[in-house]
Amino acid sequence: MAQKQEVSVRPTFEVSPIGYIQLTDGKTFLVVDPEYQDALMGLEKYKEINVFYWFDRNDTAKKRAVLQVHPQGKKENPMRGVFATHSPMRPNLIALTKCKVLAIRENVIELQSIDAFDKTPVLDIKP
Amino acid sequence: MAQKQEVSVRPTFEVSPIGYIQLTDGKTFLVVDPEYQDALMGLEKYKEINVFYWFDRNDTAKKRAVLQVHPQGKKENPMRGVFATHSPMRPNLIALTKCKVLAIRENVIELQSIDAFDKTPVLDIKP
Repeated sequence: MAQKQEVSVRPTFEVSPIGYIQLTDGKTFLVVDPEYQDALMGLEKYKEINVFYWFDRNDTAKKRAVLQVHPQGKKENPMRGVFATHSPMRPNLIALTKCKVLAIRENVIELQSIDAFDKTPVLDIKP
Repeated sequence: MAQKQEVSVRPTFEVSPIGYIQLTDGKTFLVVDPEYQDALMGLEKYKEINVFYWFDRNDTAKKRAVLQVHPQGKKENPMRGVFATHSPMRPNLIALTKCKVLAIRENVIELQSIDAFDKTPVLDIKP
């Protein structure tokens, strides 16, 4: 006899990159898709911005199911729930990092640095 | 003759609620899906947490295409790009708010308050 299947009713929402991180010649750029350039108006008055990006290297069902980690990946750190850490392993792969703005030229924001890989998809920017 | 169609190559990523906001009798709760309760381990040591939620009331193509707004919805505030505001209108409807934690009981976090509606989907929690 077939087992009763559990049916998930959890909704899903879609996010999509508004730009990408570009690491070039020791410089750090957030290249905003030109389609979204108008959304940057007024950002030049902020010296720091919150950059929301996607931990795209962990976008697998297996990694997204990890609920506890050794912080900083160090075995000597006791296991902790991912919601009590900034681990890149989490159900929704949203990263948040505060970055210093060096310059904004059209759709390109030069940052002092960012803790993200080259070509990382960026989801949002907030002051 | 048919016009050439522009084909979007922008990828999409999926996010899904890890819990919901519940406003009851003047109290504010973040009810985490029991499936994710293990991810809370260690969170009790933080007095404040960053709550990432989804502006679910604005999840339409039309609202997500809005790139400039009058901050706080006040016409007297000059238009500004959404990335230079915390507007709930933005391409990816990610909200971020810092909340004081009053108590954590199993999968339920009692917050002092939150700037979100009852039943708002929560995407992530970070210290």
